Amino acid sequence: MALRAVSAAEIESLAIGAWILGTGGGGSPYLAVLNMRRLYREGATVSLLDPMELADDDLVAVVSNMGAPLVGQERLTDPRTMARAVTMMEEYLGRKFHAVMSLEIGGGNAIQPFMAAALLRLPVVDADCMGRAFPEAQMTSFAIHDLDMFPLTLVDVRENAVIVARAASWKWMERLSRTACVAVGSIASTCKAPRTGKEVKECAILYSTSKAIRLGETVQAARRAHRDPIQAIIGAEHGLLVFRGKIRDVARRATEGFLRGTAALDGLDEFRGAAFELAFQNEFAVGWLDGTARVMTPDLICVLDSVSGEAVGTETLRYGQRVSVVALPAPPVLLTPKGLEHVGPRAFGYDLEFRSVFA
Amino acid sequence: MALRAVSAAEIESLAIGAWILGTGGGGSPYLAVLNMRRLYREGATVSLLDPMELADDDLVAVVSNMGAPLVGQERLTDPRTMARAVTMMEEYLGRKFHAVMSLEIGGGNAIQPFMAAALLRLPVVDADCMGRAFPEAQMTSFAIHDLDMFPLTLVDVRENAVIVARAASWKWMERLSRTACVAVGSIASTCKAPRTGKEVKECAILYSTSKAIRLGETVQAARRAHRDPIQAIIGAEHGLLVFRGKIRDVARRATEGFLRGTAALDGLDEFRGAAFELAFQNEFAVGWLDGTARVMTPDLICVLDSVSGEAVGTETLRYGQRVSVVALPAPPVLLTPKGLEHVGPRAFGYDLEFRSVFA
Repeated sequence: MALRAVSAAEIESLAIGAWILGTGGGGSPYLAVLNMRRLYREGATVSLLDPMELADDDLVAVVSNMGAPLVGQERLTDPRTMARAVTMMEEYLGRKFHAVMSLEIGGGNAIQPFMAAALLRLPVVDADCMGRAFPEAQMTSFAIHDLDMFPLTLVDVRENAVIVARAASWKWMERLSRTACVAVGSIASTCKAPRTGKEVKECAILYSTSKAIRLGETVQAARRAHRDPIQAIIGAEHGLLVFRGKIRDVARRATEGFLRGTAALDGLDEFRGAAFELAFQNEFAVGWLDGTARVMTPDLICVLDSVSGEAVGTETLRYGQRVSVVALPAPPVLLTPKGLEHVGPRAFGYDLEFRSVFA
Repeated sequence: MALRAVSAAEIESLAIGAWILGTGGGGSPYLAVLNMRRLYREGATVSLLDPMELADDDLVAVVSNMGAPLVGQERLTDPRTMARAVTMMEEYLGRKFHAVMSLEIGGGNAIQPFMAAALLRLPVVDADCMGRAFPEAQMTSFAIHDLDMFPLTLVDVRENAVIVARAASWKWMERLSRTACVAVGSIASTCKAPRTGKEVKECAILYSTSKAIRLGETVQAARRAHRDPIQAIIGAEHGLLVFRGKIRDVARRATEGFLRGTAALDGLDEFRGAAFELAFQNEFAVGWLDGTARVMTPDLICVLDSVSGEAVGTETLRYGQRVSVVALPAPPVLLTPKGLEHVGPRAFGYDLEFRSVFA
């Protein structure tokens, strides 16, 4: 079906699935879900659009909430703020968008386009440009495909609005938009460089929204049937259990517009006696088992509540949590040499040669 | 005369006069003068427009080089970069400018509009909105008159361009534009919020360009006649000699997009035995004579070479220089209660009640 209504129940499933695919980042979807419940109660229904139905010259708004997830927990994003980033881009371009899509299908950012779409009465494209969540602007399939990185609009909850009209590179776009984001308090609503239908069809990660919905439904079904949700996730997504344990320590700081830190885990069950350490920049980037790198970006590193299968964000990690660390395969474009330049461990400052846990 | 050609000799005089009115800031005019010499050699002539000749709805571009003056000494501003800030604003507005004017008549920023005007074939309005130089966006007569503070365009020597489309306040405009400026390396060319002819006529500091030219001519005439240029400046501008001495120490740091620091002076001649200290944020803000505040912003605090009368910028202060500290009267709008809120000593973080050295 080219265009189909997304049910309120599917929004709930999307939140669960996207939070898992967020690999710790993308922001907790909880507040976005509360917004969507209200919008649906008030009569809104958002449609999901098959990306292959886009005309080549259709214009697509790529949106995200940008900043440090910890701050996003305190300063909530209003649907109107997200919609304003989109309409400001329309005014700047002098053109109207045909649809909205996610920058990243991880966490709350999977639902941000639904918030904008509900207000703007636009469909959401079933796609994103990460297939997960990543912290920086150049960590997208669009950047890997060398598409243009500008313009970008950024708005906050006040009356502030910044347009990055041109950027010398994707890294410059990251730097310019990040400093604006930090200036307004490390959380902002952004509309990234507009995409044509052709660009979306050729360069996006397709059908990731419906994938996240299905993943959420898998977790919900396992819970209802009293089956292990962790095993259900691993089975559905061809994942791998990397560690299971208890969080012993968390070091976390909101800095430079990011949430950076580490978490240390003590093993439980089959991992008793072993230690695991996670490093994150909004999202989990590397995991070390007894001091040796075991799993690294762009493989998805998902930290899940061992009982419920609920994802744990880098901003909600805390002492004593019983968690399972599950690796899921990354979209193929991220695993190409060009892709690894953008999102491999060295792109995060780790002097590690990428080796997939699935290799 | 409503519109008159500015001669190459007048540009030289403008540089001398504006550097004095810059009170240490606005950036050394030397490099801007070199640019203007070349442009004039290549056939350009810039005209100066009487602000009262502007039609109420004429659109005026207010330009400046923004950032830390010390960085401006190392990364030179090309006329094309300044012109690009103006044309980017035209594209954003979808309207053409009728003229260009200075944000501040101090230092190189008195000449930046001439660089843009020469390339864009526009006149320069004989006015600015400080009557001197100040470090921050809200320190203008336009801000004191509560005019709109957005939009602003900011470009650098690369392909980066940022538009601050909206700002919640003048302080927010300062913060947003400053962080973008810092991100591109603490120096950028900016086109501030466009002004109508009516706004310029009612809220600008009028005829400050021709005043700066005359001041420069006064210095040049004194030098030619082997008269004391310091006395000539004091006589022409109703100034006051506040100190004369030798620079004993300079502490200077480029930080947060500004050049901040202090300079300590030992007295000479009639000030022998006395000590003077200056604090600056791009421009000189306060001067203490033997520990007591003697002169403070918005009074103009001009540090001048005691022999040549040449102004000394906060970025060119150095050990051993023989300098005279001269105070000149500030434009009346800066001395109103509203004006002092924007540019008085407390606006710079000094817990001092403003008292003019001329009171």
